[in-house]
Amino acid sequence: MTTPTPLFGAGLWNFASYVDRYATDGYDEPVSTLEQIRLAGEVGDLSYVDLNYPFSHGATLEEVKAALAAAGLKAIGVTPDIYLRRFKKGAFTNPDPAVRAAAMELLHETVGVVNELGARYVKLWPGQDGWDYPFQVNHHDVWKLAVDGIKELASAHPETKFVIEYKPREPRVKMLWDSAARSILGIKEMGLDNVGVLLDFGHALYGGESPADAAQLLIDHGLLWGMDVNDNLRGWDDDLMVGTVHMTEVFEFFYTLRINGWEGVWQLDQFPFREDSVETARASIRFLKAIHRALDKLDYVAMAEAQARHDGIAAQKLVQDALLSSMGGDA
Amino acid sequence: MTTPTPLFGAGLWNFASYVDRYATDGYDEPVSTLEQIRLAGEVGDLSYVDLNYPFSHGATLEEVKAALAAAGLKAIGVTPDIYLRRFKKGAFTNPDPAVRAAAMELLHETVGVVNELGARYVKLWPGQDGWDYPFQVNHHDVWKLAVDGIKELASAHPETKFVIEYKPREPRVKMLWDSAARSILGIKEMGLDNVGVLLDFGHALYGGESPADAAQLLIDHGLLWGMDVNDNLRGWDDDLMVGTVHMTEVFEFFYTLRINGWEGVWQLDQFPFREDSVETARASIRFLKAIHRALDKLDYVAMAEAQARHDGIAAQKLVQDALLSSMGGDA
Amino acid sequence: MTTPTPLFGAGLWNFASYVDRYATDGYDEPVSTLEQIRLAGEVGDLSYVDLNYPFSHGATLEEVKAALAAAGLKAIGVTPDIYLRRFKKGAFTNPDPAVRAAAMELLHETVGVVNELGARYVKLWPGQDGWDYPFQVNHHDVWKLAVDGIKELASAHPETKFVIEYKPREPRVKMLWDSAARSILGIKEMGLDNVGVLLDFGHALYGGESPADAAQLLIDHGLLWGMDVNDNLRGWDDDLMVGTVHMTEVFEFFYTLRINGWEGVWQLDQFPFREDSVETARASIRFLKAIHRALDKLDYVAMAEAQARHDGIAAQKLVQDALLSSMGGDA
Amino acid sequence: MTTPTPLFGAGLWNFASYVDRYATDGYDEPVSTLEQIRLAGEVGDLSYVDLNYPFSHGATLEEVKAALAAAGLKAIGVTPDIYLRRFKKGAFTNPDPAVRAAAMELLHETVGVVNELGARYVKLWPGQDGWDYPFQVNHHDVWKLAVDGIKELASAHPETKFVIEYKPREPRVKMLWDSAARSILGIKEMGLDNVGVLLDFGHALYGGESPADAAQLLIDHGLLWGMDVNDNLRGWDDDLMVGTVHMTEVFEFFYTLRINGWEGVWQLDQFPFREDSVETARASIRFLKAIHRALDKLDYVAMAEAQARHDGIAAQKLVQDALLSSMGGDA
Repeated sequence: MTTPTPLFGAGLWNFASYVDRYATDGYDEPVSTLEQIRLAGEVGDLSYVDLNYPFSHGATLEEVKAALAAAGLKAIGVTPDIYLRRFKKGAFTNPDPAVRAAAMELLHETVGVVNELGARYVKLWPGQDGWDYPFQVNHHDVWKLAVDGIKELASAHPETKFVIEYKPREPRVKMLWDSAARSILGIKEMGLDNVGVLLDFGHALYGGESPADAAQLLIDHGLLWGMDVNDNLRGWDDDLMVGTVHMTEVFEFFYTLRINGWEGVWQLDQFPFREDSVETARASIRFLKAIHRALDKLDYVAMAEAQARHDGIAAQKLVQDALLSSMGGDA
Repeated sequence: MTTPTPLFGAGLWNFASYVDRYATDGYDEPVSTLEQIRLAGEVGDLSYVDLNYPFSHGATLEEVKAALAAAGLKAIGVTPDIYLRRFKKGAFTNPDPAVRAAAMELLHETVGVVNELGARYVKLWPGQDGWDYPFQVNHHDVWKLAVDGIKELASAHPETKFVIEYKPREPRVKMLWDSAARSILGIKEMGLDNVGVLLDFGHALYGGESPADAAQLLIDHGLLWGMDVNDNLRGWDDDLMVGTVHMTEVFEFFYTLRINGWEGVWQLDQFPFREDSVETARASIRFLKAIHRALDKLDYVAMAEAQARHDGIAAQKLVQDALLSSMGGDA
Repeated sequence: MTTPTPLFGAGLWNFASYVDRYATDGYDEPVSTLEQIRLAGEVGDLSYVDLNYPFSHGATLEEVKAALAAAGLKAIGVTPDIYLRRFKKGAFTNPDPAVRAAAMELLHETVGVVNELGARYVKLWPGQDGWDYPFQVNHHDVWKLAVDGIKELASAHPETKFVIEYKPREPRVKMLWDSAARSILGIKEMGLDNVGVLLDFGHALYGGESPADAAQLLIDHGLLWGMDVNDNLRGWDDDLMVGTVHMTEVFEFFYTLRINGWEGVWQLDQFPFREDSVETARASIRFLKAIHRALDKLDYVAMAEAQARHDGIAAQKLVQDALLSSMGGDA
Repeated sequence: MTTPTPLFGAGLWNFASYVDRYATDGYDEPVSTLEQIRLAGEVGDLSYVDLNYPFSHGATLEEVKAALAAAGLKAIGVTPDIYLRRFKKGAFTNPDPAVRAAAMELLHETVGVVNELGARYVKLWPGQDGWDYPFQVNHHDVWKLAVDGIKELASAHPETKFVIEYKPREPRVKMLWDSAARSILGIKEMGLDNVGVLLDFGHALYGGESPADAAQLLIDHGLLWGMDVNDNLRGWDDDLMVGTVHMTEVFEFFYTLRINGWEGVWQLDQFPFREDSVETARASIRFLKAIHRALDKLDYVAMAEAQARHDGIAAQKLVQDALLSSMGGDA
């Protein structure tokens, strides 16, 4: 079986430079939105980017459009910066109603940007919505604000799609939208059909989920509207290059998408603090193409039979046969 | 504010002896069901026990009833052994339909025992329902079996209550009912009103949940029908004595129950591999009484105000004032 | 470069059946020592086994020797059962001097068995030496007992080699010999040259070490005297089949052994609770042969250059080129 | 037993503002070194600070001295910024010799600052010395650079003390100086008597150590030359206020210091991203004073007896009696 190569995408922040609490002077010179777009175009295999908004260095929407066109890229989504200083105690759940209103204003504005760019969705990543200390929040109240806030936003824009990217923690010690199951629950509470989920492979992994299982659950609820991949050591959101640690589980993740007929963009979410951003994207896509070829090689009938028996030995051998050349000799 | 001391309970297995994969000769001589009941009675502060079924050493239902009466105990629930050898690849989700049927048979039988004992619920702890290896199961199929199985069971006994005790893992590398949110989702899929959740404090803790937050979510969905407490190092279900590691988070858990007016039995779920079972239960209840007194001391108005501001500093000071005598001098 | 296939070994317990605190009736019928040897022989690629002592079901040393010969196996080591009921509060560090003496007696006896079997070492796995609760032990005293105990033992048998298999935890909540660095420290305190380390890949992994780095540290101290491999999800000692989760890190581990010229037996330490023990061993060896072939394919010069630059991108591409057939098309 | 209140200290960065990879505009306006000193003075109970070097905003050594005097503070140590952009791939272990030389130059300069300020030590926190990817480094070479670099530095300044603050990870996915045992090993390899360790309670905790045990090990090797405290959820270096999560283990840590007669400064290492820095310091010191009073209340004879028996029940009751007022009624 040979299937067409998937379309690849990346968060535009893959091409930024970074800062953290230690290297406060930044791991590199700041990179503007327009320059990030140019770098994304250099990768060569990218079709889509997800853009942070507001754009940096005063870039206008027109400049961004032109830069995307020049780079041969389309916008898949727009991610509003609802986790900067102003929102340090939360966007949707900030204890100060004025800050919540400011977040809402930025979010409404982002809807316009999505429409202008012809992107598919507003991506909500409420990184500061959560808590740090036991006893810091009333859990009922804060979750209600989290759900009601997105409900209010999405209700105001019924023609626009919104995806929530859940994550267990960071920058808050605990984030509210922390898992696939909780995200589904919250979306069901809203009772809207224009809110879905973007699954980040690494978030699922270090949150103790099986990314494949989380994807299946979301698909079964009709809510897997986007995804991105990367890797980590299962203890933190390291945002490493794809496949550098968890080859088998990345393979299972894409296997799950394939058997469900999920056909979306394979996006990257990496933070190459110390590496070249274009080269890390290329290396990951090189690996993802290998995964794609391995998916074409896999014996699906035998795999379905093994899984029907819960036969981990047979399933793993099939995986290794598809994935490893070194298996050639004695298989 | 002084409130009546809560009623205490314990899983009867708190008074068993244990075996693991290393000490295969067991940490102590086996303890029969009847002897476990006698030991539970010795604790002095226990009102309720949750009993494993089938009873060990051939004890009859009449003998168990008599033993409970003699010990001054009532049954709060009954936990069928759907995790023994026969069910090693799962009970509700076993790949073999005959094994699933055997599990169902035992579960139906357990309903009768619950009724005979006047207990409140059948407790479902599907410890072997899950997987060990990536690719071992089809995630859609296995979750469907998990939900449908409990639905079938609970539908057959509409007058009986069933509680699911979720847990992230062990004995399977990954368990299906692994979190509060996922449990709620599964129960909603069933569409029944006689299935709820028993929250184990330690399971929430090492699964990356805040136990207080998980309790609140369950309460908000009307599904917190039981709970038990213990402690661990956040990496495994150590089932240590309550309060030996996480004083503050246990306090937050009971605080959350109180402000919601949750009035149920405070149960223990401990595995004292190397300690005296009666003494560990007594030590934990001693600590829980302290927690209860601290709840009476807490300044609820100030706490609500602090939480409305998400003020972790003020909230923690209130906690310490209520919890620590050593604070007396300078508070 | 083609190198001879390594010799494979396995802990004999790979072929036992298991029990845990839930499936108290055991995951299968008990398997005797002699039967375990027969099963190990069936694998077909095993040259060595590590035997628990005392042997089960009353097998004599002569019977064991005969069974090994019949199965075409040699003993690489003997592991005394210093973690059964009697030693539940520790062997070397038990608070009761009589229990410590009993452990020492069993250990002396094991030296004789090692000599009789022509094995290479006594393997010390002090699984019950540690603690469960904060404040339970005096950390100075308990570590001193741990070091002094092994020193006393090894001093009494200067011609015999002893290897310590460190592990972070389980069955104790915290074990004393918990890491490569701590093991080296303790051995240095002994000042003996007949005590070394057996590195378990999975123990290193879930203890937060890089197994490759731990191996290098031990090699640099001349103390890597044995090793075994398996896999897990980095949170517990799952003892899964090799390569089912961490292909790349297993590869790095064996790469590190090769560039150091380490030539020992590639041993397995798996607990196939629910799988066929012979088949899991075969599946793992099948994968290890693939790793061995990938080691032959790897570009060592380019890897050394990449590592000299700390170039993670180049290093990972070299790894993937050696490991993945699916890379063939575009590499 | 009543003992004098300990002297308190804090890293000066406790009074800075912070940035991370999300809130790239910083959690607050930048705070200069001189302003940080003023804020530290406001706490009221601090005697010592540990200062980052170079000082920010162009402050001179004379200005810093004056500010310290005005605030009633002394310098306990100086921490050179060997983790900024230039050192993003490591200071002592950077693959580029020119960068290693630049780090060494800054370190030599820091020795002068320590002397000028009359501080006790140069604190080495080699946060960028490590790796991110499997296969990225040669583990032998990189550890050798790590040890040799500090050896070269400390050899050049035999009258100056250096302390290494170990940490498992962050900002690197894996750091080289990652545990107490490994730090001791590395220092022994140096063979110098002017290199010791500063133990950070939180680093030990989330690295899987028992902080009390790590402290004891360092004391037994004569290497516990400094310490600081904070708290976290055992999965990351959250740098929360002391005692907000792990009351019992903080208490065990200070108990261990006391029974060893360790008399140093009780330092704080907190990152109050979203809280007032002076108030978080005050709240932590308030708790630490409670710990100190609890240490005075503790029954040391009974504790020693309990620990001699490895009696976790008795030990925990003694802890709770000393720590909890709520225990008063029934103890």
